[in-house]
Amino acid sequence: MSNLIDTLKWRYATKKFDAAKKISNEDLETIKEAIRLSASSYGLQPYKIFIVEDPELRAKIQPAAWGQSQIVDASHLVVFANITNFGTEQIDAFMDNIVATRNIPMESIQGYGDFMKTTLTALSEEARNIWTSKQTYLALGNLLTAAASLKIDATPMEGFEPAKVNEILGLTEKGLNASLIATLGYRHEEDATQHYAKVRKSNEELFINL
Amino acid sequence: MSNLIDTLKWRYATKKFDAAKKISNEDLETIKEAIRLSASSYGLQPYKIFIVEDPELRAKIQPAAWGQSQIVDASHLVVFANITNFGTEQIDAFMDNIVATRNIPMESIQGYGDFMKTTLTALSEEARNIWTSKQTYLALGNLLTAAASLKIDATPMEGFEPAKVNEILGLTEKGLNASLIATLGYRHEEDATQHYAKVRKSNEELFINL
Repeated sequence: MSNLIDTLKWRYATKKFDAAKKISNEDLETIKEAIRLSASSYGLQPYKIFIVEDPELRAKIQPAAWGQSQIVDASHLVVFANITNFGTEQIDAFMDNIVATRNIPMESIQGYGDFMKTTLTALSEEARNIWTSKQTYLALGNLLTAAASLKIDATPMEGFEPAKVNEILGLTEKGLNASLIATLGYRHEEDATQHYAKVRKSNEELFINL
Repeated sequence: MSNLIDTLKWRYATKKFDAAKKISNEDLETIKEAIRLSASSYGLQPYKIFIVEDPELRAKIQPAAWGQSQIVDASHLVVFANITNFGTEQIDAFMDNIVATRNIPMESIQGYGDFMKTTLTALSEEARNIWTSKQTYLALGNLLTAAASLKIDATPMEGFEPAKVNEILGLTEKGLNASLIATLGYRHEEDATQHYAKVRKSNEELFINL
């Protein structure tokens, strides 16, 4: 099990990517599968994931992300967009998926579906959007772990202007909002931060046993 | 790398734990280390993690979590509590940790520290609390992956009343808020949900290539 710990120790938020190195399709599919398997509230996966390779689009996004070089130099840019105003339509689609995947009658999950609908529609639109945004952090976590396990570097980013990214990617009219960005690729040998010691709270500072 | 994918496929939100089975100290330490190594915004880790074994405390928490049996039957209960009103005090402690860990002069990171302080204190207290709560989802993700890699079962939970859990654990006066709960242990052989097929969106539904 030291394998996962070693993987988590190896990763760092890459500041400079080697623009000449692209990740393979096979590795990209593995990372996508890890994202797809992420846990989420009720299993609803209330988000879409944009895999952006197009250089022109990334050049447009870069100024909306404090000009960070990773946006254009990394092999791939990933935008996690939470679904805004999540509601009964998406829950019905989820229930259809359960019925099809498990080959069970819709009646057997009707109570569960009604419970989800009641719980979620009781939330304000703002609270629902915060809740769907939170789920993207679980998906981002799987991206980071999957990439590191393949010795692929990544940079998780909250530092961007969601309104501008929404406009560039046309997200608002699709009922989506840019929640998180991650870049994927290979560290540049000149990225000095790869040599910095990882800074973390001690066990004593972080954990309380009761 | 199919190893991680197999691990993610193996895990599920356990509905019923075998109350007779406890996880070992060694495995618990591995899971804690995975949580401690989680990525977080700026690396600030704006949360505390409560590892609750005390049966009386768990019996008190159970009614605040819809009576779910996992709260008392699992080997360990983990409460992720985000720091409320996160501010300059915590950032100064983080900077002290950077200086000590990397053995560098404080002057070399003063600009970075000022940037974090300016950015974070510009947020409303509510926005800051949402932001610290979001970071706990990354830590929860590491718990889920680490546990599954050890063939330890877990249940991630948003379904509880934070105000009641805050009161039971005395979190509010410590400047903390219960954001997420996870239980850890071993699935009961009678938990039928372990045999259910995993329901996930298809690649075509979830990902958009640009």
